[in-house]
Amino acid sequence: MTEIIAALTDALPEGVVVTDPDVLAAHTRDHADLCDAGAPVALVRPRDTNQVGIVLALASAHGVPVVPQGARTGLAGAANAVDGCVLLSLSAMNRILEIDPVNRLAVVQPGVVNADVTKAVAPHGLRYMPDPGSYESSTIGGNVATNAGGMCCVKYGVTAEYVLGLEVVLADGRVMRCGRRTAKGVAGYDLVRLFVGSEGTLGVITEITLKLQPTPKPALSLAAVFESTTAAGAAVTAITAAGCVPSLLELVDNVHLRAIEALAPQGLPTDAAALLLAASDSGVAEDLGTIARLCEQSGATEVFQATDEQEAEALLTSRRLAYHAMEKLGAVIVDDIAVPRSRLAEALDGVAAIAAKTGAHVGVIAHAGDGNLHPNIVVDRTDPASVERGRRAFEEILAMALDMGGTSTGEHGVGLLKRDWLERELDHVNYSMQKAVKHAFDPAGVLNPGKVLG
Amino acid sequence: MTEIIAALTDALPEGVVVTDPDVLAAHTRDHADLCDAGAPVALVRPRDTNQVGIVLALASAHGVPVVPQGARTGLAGAANAVDGCVLLSLSAMNRILEIDPVNRLAVVQPGVVNADVTKAVAPHGLRYMPDPGSYESSTIGGNVATNAGGMCCVKYGVTAEYVLGLEVVLADGRVMRCGRRTAKGVAGYDLVRLFVGSEGTLGVITEITLKLQPTPKPALSLAAVFESTTAAGAAVTAITAAGCVPSLLELVDNVHLRAIEALAPQGLPTDAAALLLAASDSGVAEDLGTIARLCEQSGATEVFQATDEQEAEALLTSRRLAYHAMEKLGAVIVDDIAVPRSRLAEALDGVAAIAAKTGAHVGVIAHAGDGNLHPNIVVDRTDPASVERGRRAFEEILAMALDMGGTSTGEHGVGLLKRDWLERELDHVNYSMQKAVKHAFDPAGVLNPGKVLG
Repeated sequence: MTEIIAALTDALPEGVVVTDPDVLAAHTRDHADLCDAGAPVALVRPRDTNQVGIVLALASAHGVPVVPQGARTGLAGAANAVDGCVLLSLSAMNRILEIDPVNRLAVVQPGVVNADVTKAVAPHGLRYMPDPGSYESSTIGGNVATNAGGMCCVKYGVTAEYVLGLEVVLADGRVMRCGRRTAKGVAGYDLVRLFVGSEGTLGVITEITLKLQPTPKPALSLAAVFESTTAAGAAVTAITAAGCVPSLLELVDNVHLRAIEALAPQGLPTDAAALLLAASDSGVAEDLGTIARLCEQSGATEVFQATDEQEAEALLTSRRLAYHAMEKLGAVIVDDIAVPRSRLAEALDGVAAIAAKTGAHVGVIAHAGDGNLHPNIVVDRTDPASVERGRRAFEEILAMALDMGGTSTGEHGVGLLKRDWLERELDHVNYSMQKAVKHAFDPAGVLNPGKVLG
Repeated sequence: MTEIIAALTDALPEGVVVTDPDVLAAHTRDHADLCDAGAPVALVRPRDTNQVGIVLALASAHGVPVVPQGARTGLAGAANAVDGCVLLSLSAMNRILEIDPVNRLAVVQPGVVNADVTKAVAPHGLRYMPDPGSYESSTIGGNVATNAGGMCCVKYGVTAEYVLGLEVVLADGRVMRCGRRTAKGVAGYDLVRLFVGSEGTLGVITEITLKLQPTPKPALSLAAVFESTTAAGAAVTAITAAGCVPSLLELVDNVHLRAIEALAPQGLPTDAAALLLAASDSGVAEDLGTIARLCEQSGATEVFQATDEQEAEALLTSRRLAYHAMEKLGAVIVDDIAVPRSRLAEALDGVAAIAAKTGAHVGVIAHAGDGNLHPNIVVDRTDPASVERGRRAFEEILAMALDMGGTSTGEHGVGLLKRDWLERELDHVNYSMQKAVKHAFDPAGVLNPGKVLG
């Protein structure tokens, strides 16, 4: 233990290696519930790629596990310490290295906060599209390592689709570049995509070449009120089947509507089964009108259409408050399943049935257009029976998702939280090849051991 | 040799194993020039996944190489026979298994022709977007194995972005599923993306879950005439920098313009340095107008704007004839580089300089909006000096692309043709990890040996 600390301290500039127990304690876990965290021996905050290489080479030589961390906003325990590990925080590597407007790309260090990229590229008429809920605090490195989703995915896709190239330090300290700066390229296996979503288990990302988009046209939005989840689900199906391409299609259920209204009264329909929020940035005014009509035809009792950008933004406020509102009611266990979007209503009803059966307090917000549901389970930390009910509901919801041809994680990742579920979700040949890939990149198992794969 | 044939014939239904020398001879190579092909011992045409598994298990047991083939329209020699191999043609597995309009996906066998998917999903208001030049003959399996590009990439991306899930038979005959049917999902490493573009070297794809898009709005298009490649390149830069999102942005150079006009006179401006073709399917009429204005501001001497869909389609005819027109002049060596799109003009001038220096006859068509150039080199097969000039130009163009921060293959793949260039393009750590990935999936080196990696 002290050996690796001495080696790191010797090799790195002052201030990079931290062993203060309070600092370590503050860095042992991410935002995930239900996940264990071990005790780290040190926290290192390298300033450049070379220092990351030194950390990994030394850790490998000493057989000490390394747990990479960004802003620790993850929700699957992927950034949680394991016993005896070195925590490798990339937060000090937070520079935007380049913005290239013509080639629509930016080169950034992993510790840059998502929103800071958006701000920096805006003057060029460009946007970095991925918008995870944590965009104001989470880092690009963490977003890439978890393949973060968000509300814009329904039209613009996930983080993976915006990563052109990477610089990565491998477990043994060697530095590798993969990907490209060109719009297209098929030279060799797509290692970029392998690292995206690998949650720090294959290598440590030290530089990212991001793809940017022209700033979308201003979005118009609407909110539709439904008296049944079946009707709300039917609306989502109708919108998708009609070939609409909303830039946002979110669902807030009754449990969340009441929680939000309790936190910040704004006249939400607290009797409604669900509120569907839709936006369109196509620039074609009729496109949102079509969505409104389909909501009405599917049984919406009311449809409020925003008439300008300010009103459109206001409509989204309730959605943004959803998680915070639930947290006011107790500790929240966040689940994250995705089902084929045609089965959204069925999944909502299934979650309600599981809540009734287990007695857990469960509400759902959903990236409805993607079939990606976040059942949020409120528990009372001081009551073991409440926590146990929550845990049972959590597990039953995952089982339901797999039964429906869905996945145990739509966007939050595997980490520790879904590790056993990953083995259940994948066929055994796939699972064995996942392990083979891990072995190819990290034969000694130094990188984030026990995460993703058992 | 006869041992593997006997084993395959025993294990598979009549007609699946072919040893007729004429049939074998007809299947030894794809469309690539400058590539060697070996002598196969048999051609097998399995009818289902189980039969593919039998072929691979037997080949592995006998240590016989297997070369997967689709329609052999590839341009890098990836489907070329190697000595003593079994050619594994997926062309008989050509069924569309499912079309799911609400979840916007189709499940197909690898032997389905690209255009047949497009036709089958059209009545549902959906389109399978990737449109490689060979779309009327190439198979989806081949498209996926090479991560095929096309003209729509500038707006809609490459094949990889339309592959949700795969069934794959591994080198030892085991069957694996990866990916999903949901819109989002982050369960484990992205093995789908690893197989896409792996050119048959990691496994044999036996089923593909494709992502479909709502049929885009009708495209309007224009053709702009430029007296210099610099001006044409400036127009592409201006269009990209202005945040325009054309659905097509193609360049045809003077050499091709003259070749096309010679083949099918249609009044093309044969004195022009380049013709730029642009289309927009945004549904916003002004978007194409903006592109037209930017072309004029960049120095276009004339801009013809199509007034309806028929005229728009007619404008593309010249582009579609380009390769065919060049073939009338001699044998064509097709190159495929991509550079940062800001350097398009520079790349065009570079190719012209290389043509002048080597004495080779080179014309360029380009997916200009992607910075993806196809320098087409016309040679006289009967004249070794002409072929040698062509080969020198080919190599110098690749070296130029790498010098410009580009890639040796934008969309055609590595195969045999660019194998040595791949090693030159990637850093040595990346290259060693490419080999480690190959080894993880195919430790005995049975699958398409010598392709992609040396």
